[in-house]
Amino acid sequence: MKDLNKLPSGFFCSGISAGIKPNNVLDMALITSDSLASAAGVFTTNQVCAAPVKLCQKHLAEPYSKAIIINSGIANACTGIDGMNSAKEMAEITSKKIETSEENIFVCSTGKIGPQLPMEKINKGINSLVDSLSTKNLELMSKSIMTTDTHPKVVSKVITIDDKEITITGVAKGAGMIEPNMATMLAFILTDAVIQPSNLQSCLTGAVNHSFNRITIDGDQSTNDTVLMLANGNANNSDIFPHSPAWSIFTDAVNKVCFELAMMIVHDGEGADRFITLVVEEALSDTDADIAARSVANSLLNKTAWAGSYPDWGRIMDAIGYSSAKISSEKVNIFYGDTQAVEAGCQYDVDHKTLVEAVSEKELFIRVQLGLGDGKATVYTCNCTERYVRINY
Amino acid sequence: MKDLNKLPSGFFCSGISAGIKPNNVLDMALITSDSLASAAGVFTTNQVCAAPVKLCQKHLAEPYSKAIIINSGIANACTGIDGMNSAKEMAEITSKKIETSEENIFVCSTGKIGPQLPMEKINKGINSLVDSLSTKNLELMSKSIMTTDTHPKVVSKVITIDDKEITITGVAKGAGMIEPNMATMLAFILTDAVIQPSNLQSCLTGAVNHSFNRITIDGDQSTNDTVLMLANGNANNSDIFPHSPAWSIFTDAVNKVCFELAMMIVHDGEGADRFITLVVEEALSDTDADIAARSVANSLLNKTAWAGSYPDWGRIMDAIGYSSAKISSEKVNIFYGDTQAVEAGCQYDVDHKTLVEAVSEKELFIRVQLGLGDGKATVYTCNCTERYVRINY
Repeated sequence: MKDLNKLPSGFFCSGISAGIKPNNVLDMALITSDSLASAAGVFTTNQVCAAPVKLCQKHLAEPYSKAIIINSGIANACTGIDGMNSAKEMAEITSKKIETSEENIFVCSTGKIGPQLPMEKINKGINSLVDSLSTKNLELMSKSIMTTDTHPKVVSKVITIDDKEITITGVAKGAGMIEPNMATMLAFILTDAVIQPSNLQSCLTGAVNHSFNRITIDGDQSTNDTVLMLANGNANNSDIFPHSPAWSIFTDAVNKVCFELAMMIVHDGEGADRFITLVVEEALSDTDADIAARSVANSLLNKTAWAGSYPDWGRIMDAIGYSSAKISSEKVNIFYGDTQAVEAGCQYDVDHKTLVEAVSEKELFIRVQLGLGDGKATVYTCNCTERYVRINY
Repeated sequence: MKDLNKLPSGFFCSGISAGIKPNNVLDMALITSDSLASAAGVFTTNQVCAAPVKLCQKHLAEPYSKAIIINSGIANACTGIDGMNSAKEMAEITSKKIETSEENIFVCSTGKIGPQLPMEKINKGINSLVDSLSTKNLELMSKSIMTTDTHPKVVSKVITIDDKEITITGVAKGAGMIEPNMATMLAFILTDAVIQPSNLQSCLTGAVNHSFNRITIDGDQSTNDTVLMLANGNANNSDIFPHSPAWSIFTDAVNKVCFELAMMIVHDGEGADRFITLVVEEALSDTDADIAARSVANSLLNKTAWAGSYPDWGRIMDAIGYSSAKISSEKVNIFYGDTQAVEAGCQYDVDHKTLVEAVSEKELFIRVQLGLGDGKATVYTCNCTERYVRINY
């Protein structure tokens, strides 16, 4: 598996400033495939979900696509019928310009919740985007979908199946909200592999569950979260399907692309300066482990504690205790890296200096053993600093 | 109903510095009744619960009490068998000194999770506390239970039942955590009314559900949260029981004492400078309304938004949307005070300046209408400032 920042064969993209954001900041992007690609998607489960998310879900009923049109700056969420018409118009204009049907276009928006899209600017923007499509615009496109990101996020892997070179390239933005009401994580995974839509969907769902669904910055799930995957078949490999040898090579690469993008998002968490890997094991079930881990990762007292370097294991005990996961206090062990802090629910006999050193690691690894069963879960998160508060008010 | 800061008849208290905290800060308190009082209690539902909480629950099996012994500085939580022995010892020493049985003593601790109590200091402290009991020590006692509180919290009401004057006095501390691992809300409600324990318990449970259980500072429920109520009967009124005229007068006063203490706690929220009343109405059920309200109140993006003055209703839509309460986006209305911000899930036609003024109120009232049913809930919360982060790392 090789790392190369390039688009898979047959994909093109572009990025421009359409004037949605002030000061000529990049705010629109387009991804196209020269042939109709198998498509898959995973979307926010928020009941308040943006117009473009609803449109993508509708268009995914026929799981083939030729393009993804994206704007940043305005989320087109909580915008009612007008908002839905704007999303449809984005698909319609793009489809006409690249000569395909509307149903083959995905639409994504990220930014402020509430305002309507400036459709005149958007329409002009789409024309410019189509006119400037190129295989060389990966970085430009990845910058055009950013909101509060401090840098673009691109991961690309090249694998070989049937002596054919297959490229899998992922681009993501998120997850933070610098302006009031900014929102959303977006990710686009492109590949030139030959794979049927249903298998592509199962591959993507698996990869998302072990990557984007395992990270939390602030516990706030957006109205626009979207992961889309397109596979245009340009690599001419024989069809990839579950249980074939190619399947594991392919899914492994997709998993890695998604995982690396997800880790980039946590590392770029708003105002954050520490990365925390939190493993809960020996839970009654994987679900219980996941609940306990998220309770700790989303606890404001733990997130702020991680901004300092105090061995604050009491806050971990507290957060697993009030979660709905089954806990027996006297069976819990907690470790910071290799240093044990809690044994059988009580302070472990370790000197304070060693413990302080253990919790001072910039990349902090925390392991919580519940002593009840075989359930296990890992979540990746970051600390909450004063800068996060400043960014978000 | 009169407001007078005094202890009910037959109650005594004291507060001292026993050396648990550094710098001679007040850290132990004692409350006694001259006769055996009816007792009631409400405790944390955290599965990781401190030794003194377990001991109180055990002693409440026989719902009569003569004293509450309290220390601040160390929570005696996650302290195993040694910690339970310390809690028992606190009850035992107090019981001997005031000549009653151990079962008649409640024990409360608040402070750091993990360390064992310094029993020698505590034992000496109990002796000093008993020796300095007085009817004049209400303020001293209320200061001795403080941890991160910026001021003591006392509410006292005098009512008349059967021509007898009845006093109900509440003292509380919390809820914040200035030192790593500091924890807990404690509240003690004292009255000289005649009332049987089971009726006292039902009165207290009702009052707590509409006061302490309706506030959230940071969503982190402590290992030590405890509300205890003692009624020693010194007022010689005829027994108060449900559906009697006296019942509503009495429960009304108890509700007010608990509610005012709870509001004091939110106003004293760590680092907070704004008080938010959040009403969710027209939910499918009261439970749904409560879930949606707590999702907003505990959302880090909303708490930080309230540190600024931007009309960030998109974050409210987002938080109710990802809650498990049933929502139909297009039926939601949101108001800041009297100013409507959202109509049918979309931005309401109101000028930006008016909206900014509405969200700039120091005491912010937010009303969310879900348009689905008759369910309603109110929660009281505060904002999250940079100072909260500084306090907690």
